[in-house]
Amino acid sequence: MNDPDTHQRPVYLDHAASTPMYAEAVAAVTAQMTRLGNPSSLHASGRSARRVVEESRETIARALGARPSEVVFTSGGTESDNLALKGLYWARRAADPRRTRILSTAVEHHAVLDPLHWLGEQGADVELLPVNRCGRLDVTALRETVERDPGSVALVSVMWANNEVGTVQPLADVVEIAHAHGIPVHTDAVQAVGQVPVDFAASGADALTLTAHKVGGPFGVGALVVRRELELVPLLHGGGQERDVRSGTIDAPAIAGFAAAVELSVARQPEHAARVAALRDDLLRRVLEEVPDAVVNGDKNCTLAHRLPGNAHIQFPGCEGDSLLMLLDARGIECSTGSACSAGVPQASHVLLAMGADDVSARSALRFSLGHTTTQADVDALVEAIGPVVERARAAGIASGFGVAKLAV
Amino acid sequence: MNDPDTHQRPVYLDHAASTPMYAEAVAAVTAQMTRLGNPSSLHASGRSARRVVEESRETIARALGARPSEVVFTSGGTESDNLALKGLYWARRAADPRRTRILSTAVEHHAVLDPLHWLGEQGADVELLPVNRCGRLDVTALRETVERDPGSVALVSVMWANNEVGTVQPLADVVEIAHAHGIPVHTDAVQAVGQVPVDFAASGADALTLTAHKVGGPFGVGALVVRRELELVPLLHGGGQERDVRSGTIDAPAIAGFAAAVELSVARQPEHAARVAALRDDLLRRVLEEVPDAVVNGDKNCTLAHRLPGNAHIQFPGCEGDSLLMLLDARGIECSTGSACSAGVPQASHVLLAMGADDVSARSALRFSLGHTTTQADVDALVEAIGPVVERARAAGIASGFGVAKLAV
Repeated sequence: MNDPDTHQRPVYLDHAASTPMYAEAVAAVTAQMTRLGNPSSLHASGRSARRVVEESRETIARALGARPSEVVFTSGGTESDNLALKGLYWARRAADPRRTRILSTAVEHHAVLDPLHWLGEQGADVELLPVNRCGRLDVTALRETVERDPGSVALVSVMWANNEVGTVQPLADVVEIAHAHGIPVHTDAVQAVGQVPVDFAASGADALTLTAHKVGGPFGVGALVVRRELELVPLLHGGGQERDVRSGTIDAPAIAGFAAAVELSVARQPEHAARVAALRDDLLRRVLEEVPDAVVNGDKNCTLAHRLPGNAHIQFPGCEGDSLLMLLDARGIECSTGSACSAGVPQASHVLLAMGADDVSARSALRFSLGHTTTQADVDALVEAIGPVVERARAAGIASGFGVAKLAV
Repeated sequence: MNDPDTHQRPVYLDHAASTPMYAEAVAAVTAQMTRLGNPSSLHASGRSARRVVEESRETIARALGARPSEVVFTSGGTESDNLALKGLYWARRAADPRRTRILSTAVEHHAVLDPLHWLGEQGADVELLPVNRCGRLDVTALRETVERDPGSVALVSVMWANNEVGTVQPLADVVEIAHAHGIPVHTDAVQAVGQVPVDFAASGADALTLTAHKVGGPFGVGALVVRRELELVPLLHGGGQERDVRSGTIDAPAIAGFAAAVELSVARQPEHAARVAALRDDLLRRVLEEVPDAVVNGDKNCTLAHRLPGNAHIQFPGCEGDSLLMLLDARGIECSTGSACSAGVPQASHVLLAMGADDVSARSALRFSLGHTTTQADVDALVEAIGPVVERARAAGIASGFGVAKLAV
């Protein structure tokens, strides 16, 4: 532990919050940053920057089974989700005022749930469908809800895979149910791209959110992949960039880095998934050996069709997640209790609650998310630390009264 | 002209569209890009990224006479303008449904005009106030419009300085008129920061837009500086970042580069303005010598209180602006016919039309915008080229019938 290198480089098991940039993506951003020109300018520098943007758009489209004209660049996943939900809802309701319903799931990211909550305050009827104990959408419930009154549904939004427990959603079923009634489907694929196969055209989805910093690209850039025929009310009005769907100066350097990262992460996805899933399986098995009463949350079927390869979500009875996080952090091991986007908010995860957990057990979980830089040594370090850390957190938990209900069982 | 260096480096006179990054800003982005962690994560990497963000916020606040808690990071100027206008309008109207009016000027950037147009379609009463021949707001008209029915005004938005003709607006008067009735004022200061003194607190404005790539920082990041007590409905709902006003993963590398650029450009503003204004004055004088019937648009008083130091906007009778632009571009000289954000759209500038220009003369103008990398050699190159280029554009214009009305005078 006195080795400065060991000290400098944490054991980073929080790739679902943000994964380090690929060197190729850093190089792409760096190369563009020192170049001149606004991609909307007509002179040579502007046209050259624009060329970089359009080539990046083609690269991303090719990697995701989309057409270049379907890729709308945004500032990231949150903006893409907001644009899809508000933009689609407003456009669909304007076309037919009966369309007041939005159907989604109880386990979406806040970047979906919070816009929906806001739209609800503005008069939309938002229905969040239940999931099973694995976090998987109840398809029968969705079908019944749609068929109750299909003409009133403005859109359906179901994430490709869950950011906390890694559960892959039955998107094909969702699309089939919605399309039977001409209802468009949006999917937040922020956690899926580069982890499982994602093909926009083959999925049947009408709009798909992705973001660069989850696939080894820079922060501050993402895309909404969206069918051209789908009308969207813009969130950002202005210069008319991105075929008037998203105004704002086009960020050529970030887009170049984004394209490099999407291309690499999608090309490497099969071997990445196999490698990372093996490390994750090793992590789960050995952590359960160290802490025999720990419980794995999410889908026990850890194949790619069911669960993201890098996701391990574990409940440690009698421990407070935040205490575990801090104790591990003190040992240089970085993970999370849930979404980074709501970190610091001492609330039980809405995802775990929707999966049937009680408040205490929901607050006793940690998410370990593995990524492209994760090594066997990282897993070994966690396995070595977890026993003592859980012991210490339990002692603290008993002292503070946390988890007593659980321990009394 | 066979010197590859000359060929490689254009004479860049389009800094108002985007100015090259300062080396310090590039270094700040680069340093952060290779670091781990989402600034919302609780572990050491996350906290370290968050520290960079908060220090950057303090730097920007200090440079602009604001409090750190007043700086809300966004993806850039267009988002900041949209957030200010829609967010303020929605919040003010919700607090009092009589507040349906939004007052602005006819010469705002599209990032203001287009959101206003959209709000108008949603029921807002948007009134765009006239400007004089210099492009300066008619303060008397504003006062009369406000006083007609102050209780119905949701907000006033007046840019700090115009992006096309460089005219500095009478913001102090605007604030005085609006605040007499408790009406908040937003100002788009995208073109002003680093060019003229900008102090948020001293200006009295309630919300101020700025963006990094106009001050030597990266694309894809900007801020809305906004008084804490002002309620704003968010455009992007989600994880609750930026005190819930603007959700979305925080882009620490871009923010670090933004802060470096704001700090430098504001610190250097006095000497920058003096240097660049002298070059601009030299450019105007010598271009008028070469093309005696050329006309300078905007405020003839070129002091900082009236006009941005780097702005030269010149009308070349009998020429089509786009032809001039392309002919100059062919000689390695880069400028624009107006806002880069609406470049490529063959429309007369709404700014020049609002200043009383007719359609033909509005389409015969070029904007040269000087910046921190501009040298005397750049001005000399333009002066050398402008005579032959105007001659050629006139010949083409006569051939195509353009400008005949003007030439016939």
